[in-house]
Amino acid sequence: MAKVLVAYYSRSGNTKKMAEIISVVLKDQGLQIELKDVSETKAEELINYDVIVFGSPTYYGSMAYQIKKLIDESVKLHGKLEGKIGAAFSSAGNVAGGNETTIAGILNAFLIHGMIVQGDSRGDHYGPVSLGLPEERAIKECQRFAKRLAVLANKLFD
Amino acid sequence: MAKVLVAYYSRSGNTKKMAEIISVVLKDQGLQIELKDVSETKAEELINYDVIVFGSPTYYGSMAYQIKKLIDESVKLHGKLEGKIGAAFSSAGNVAGGNETTIAGILNAFLIHGMIVQGDSRGDHYGPVSLGLPEERAIKECQRFAKRLAVLANKLFD
Amino acid sequence: MAKVLVAYYSRSGNTKKMAEIISVVLKDQGLQIELKDVSETKAEELINYDVIVFGSPTYYGSMAYQIKKLIDESVKLHGKLEGKIGAAFSSAGNVAGGNETTIAGILNAFLIHGMIVQGDSRGDHYGPVSLGLPEERAIKECQRFAKRLAVLANKLFD
Amino acid sequence: MAKVLVAYYSRSGNTKKMAEIISVVLKDQGLQIELKDVSETKAEELINYDVIVFGSPTYYGSMAYQIKKLIDESVKLHGKLEGKIGAAFSSAGNVAGGNETTIAGILNAFLIHGMIVQGDSRGDHYGPVSLGLPEERAIKECQRFAKRLAVLANKLFD
Repeated sequence: MAKVLVAYYSRSGNTKKMAEIISVVLKDQGLQIELKDVSETKAEELINYDVIVFGSPTYYGSMAYQIKKLIDESVKLHGKLEGKIGAAFSSAGNVAGGNETTIAGILNAFLIHGMIVQGDSRGDHYGPVSLGLPEERAIKECQRFAKRLAVLANKLFD
Repeated sequence: MAKVLVAYYSRSGNTKKMAEIISVVLKDQGLQIELKDVSETKAEELINYDVIVFGSPTYYGSMAYQIKKLIDESVKLHGKLEGKIGAAFSSAGNVAGGNETTIAGILNAFLIHGMIVQGDSRGDHYGPVSLGLPEERAIKECQRFAKRLAVLANKLFD
Repeated sequence: MAKVLVAYYSRSGNTKKMAEIISVVLKDQGLQIELKDVSETKAEELINYDVIVFGSPTYYGSMAYQIKKLIDESVKLHGKLEGKIGAAFSSAGNVAGGNETTIAGILNAFLIHGMIVQGDSRGDHYGPVSLGLPEERAIKECQRFAKRLAVLANKLFD
Repeated sequence: MAKVLVAYYSRSGNTKKMAEIISVVLKDQGLQIELKDVSETKAEELINYDVIVFGSPTYYGSMAYQIKKLIDESVKLHGKLEGKIGAAFSSAGNVAGGNETTIAGILNAFLIHGMIVQGDSRGDHYGPVSLGLPEERAIKECQRFAKRLAVLANKLFD
């Protein structure tokens, strides 16, 4: 049973809501989930999971600094996260645009850690995106994302 | 035994040289390799491989249009490359810079196809890069890249 | 009076429609406009303009290869486009996502040519985006984009 | 006389060294310079400058969180930085790669603020990069960058 961390930063609650939807589906798929606010997540813990999922609002085309802080601090584990799965999601508030580059920025960090990421040919390609509070479309994208992530996790870590 | 396509565009021969080094190691690792100039590669063929590797020179911060043409034409297979592994490498000629964004652009296309990519925490993070003709450092990066790719291919497709 | 080239590739007609809207407004602002299909645009001509605007559909997260071909061929002018203004716009068809990285890819090429680009704090930040045929929102974004471009062109080339 | 802010984050001193080299040349070119550690820079101050230059080490393919924090906080000035010039530079320490995406991430934030950026066709295209302590090549790139920035600043703000 793969162990998954879903860590998020959320000011308005939109990213947190996405994190909760994703976590429910991952649990339903039989994975062991830890859902955490990034402020309660220590870089050292990242080593304990097979799958690391970060959620961030889109601020000026990239992740919130609180998520970046965790990534910067993860340098102490450099080389030890090799082969784990990484995934990301984002919500955009009143400042439009930049979702894609936000998710891409998180995925790049996972690649630099030697981790594995997968896209989606039908849904939101790099990871689910919500414009404001997740409405029907974004909820479905989050659920779809979690189901696909569970398939990959079971293939690699079961 | 996973089937791998290594397709490249090369004007100066530098990217071709990288493709050859990578192919030799992949073959040594027991994979079934097809090494092809992109001009001889049809989009329809992509479906025949478990692992797709594209090599391109860096031109103005992104892949050569010949590689992009193949990617654009692969839309006819959209949804059918899900779960395959993608990887990329690049060489830079006389116009410096842009290697990273070139490789990232190819990897993004693979993600949009629903494919799986992995980074490297020690070597060239997104994929091997050569400045001009591959010298010792770049040759080692190509070999390292191929060995890692074989490990992932064997895990997912053996 | 600044001279502007608006060159586009369009298969469905959506990107062409955006190019036309932008060209009308640029002309209204007193600029000298050349509106061209990319297939009729030679790299050598780029030197004749103060402002170069490229429009492309979003294909797999980056510009259509026809636009990239023109950019690749512009290497023969390398160093001679310094200080010109560059701008970009994109439309997305049935494959969702990737608009931002498409526009960013074109702007990166302009930066590598030593050109000047400007974003927008209120409208589509990097350049106007249309989902399918430009509807009311996208039309307004194209018009806003052209007006802002005219202001910058007049400041730098009048 | 254009007013320039050069703000940097530096742990090892390499990025600070680049900031100092750039500031000396900008001053020589007759600009009014403020050189500041990012920890002493308040988002509100950004409005006081015509040109904003950020320097950051490359951490996991993007800017240090301390720089991102300042950018996130600059949302209170959203719309008020329109038309200013932005520029960026980066140093890479022991973790190789990611310089380009780091600089691109900062420039994207400037574009979202509606600011103006320029590339360089001969030097480091997006902004100067140093691998470790700036050696001869990186020092020249920093000097070249500052001279070009002064030309653009004088054109737009004199």
